[in-house]
Amino acid sequence: MPIELDPIGRVESPLADRASAPKQGFEGGPDAWIALDPRVRDGLDGIAPGDELLVLTWLDRAERDVLRVHPRDDRSAPLRGVFGTRSADRPNPIGIHPVRVLAVEGARIRVSDLEAVDGTPVLDLKPVLKPR
Amino acid sequence: MPIELDPIGRVESPLADRASAPKQGFEGGPDAWIALDPRVRDGLDGIAPGDELLVLTWLDRAERDVLRVHPRDDRSAPLRGVFGTRSADRPNPIGIHPVRVLAVEGARIRVSDLEAVDGTPVLDLKPVLKPR
Repeated sequence: MPIELDPIGRVESPLADRASAPKQGFEGGPDAWIALDPRVRDGLDGIAPGDELLVLTWLDRAERDVLRVHPRDDRSAPLRGVFGTRSADRPNPIGIHPVRVLAVEGARIRVSDLEAVDGTPVLDLKPVLKPR
Repeated sequence: MPIELDPIGRVESPLADRASAPKQGFEGGPDAWIALDPRVRDGLDGIAPGDELLVLTWLDRAERDVLRVHPRDDRSAPLRGVFGTRSADRPNPIGIHPVRVLAVEGARIRVSDLEAVDGTPVLDLKPVLKPR
């Protein structure tokens, strides 16, 4: 039975398309806004600049019928299963992006190092947990 | 517009319900199987014992209309927004579980420290990435 998700918001970013996006945020993603739906505003209570969050996105430009890829789009690298790679192309293309909060303005959050492209649906935000 | 996901598999675990599950796997989750749908078997190519993976799950027992919680179910702790907590209750209850692969048998993977309960739908598997 399929599972239905409603995005909680969208990415507002200078990145216009996949070709211009880095593979991972720590390789140089730009600062971006996450514009949340005002109905989930209360979910941000207590989040402040400096917090480290995971942004979960729906990679809506991805191909969902791909099970093997050349890692990092390097065609000289051997094919391997998508579950051992961070390829956007996979059956359920959910992106996980570690970011730092720069500002919170109402239902909008400014974050650093987000490699998702403009308009990407946002599914969830979670704190980064560090095992003791 | 809602997004539709099809689970790629299910958790097979001795954990029967939320009450018996630890809050986080590193607090003592049991070993468990992830039984993938055979149609996505090729997505596992290259995954081997010792690999560290993130298991993304759909927390199907969670409440989706909750925006503020007492962190770690401690009712003496002040309420805070779900996006600053790892509460299962949230608009899109996607769980992220860091595990280590113990064995791969066809479309089934044995993993350590998985705090998800038996029958939990699995959405995706990704490698743990470490920034250089």
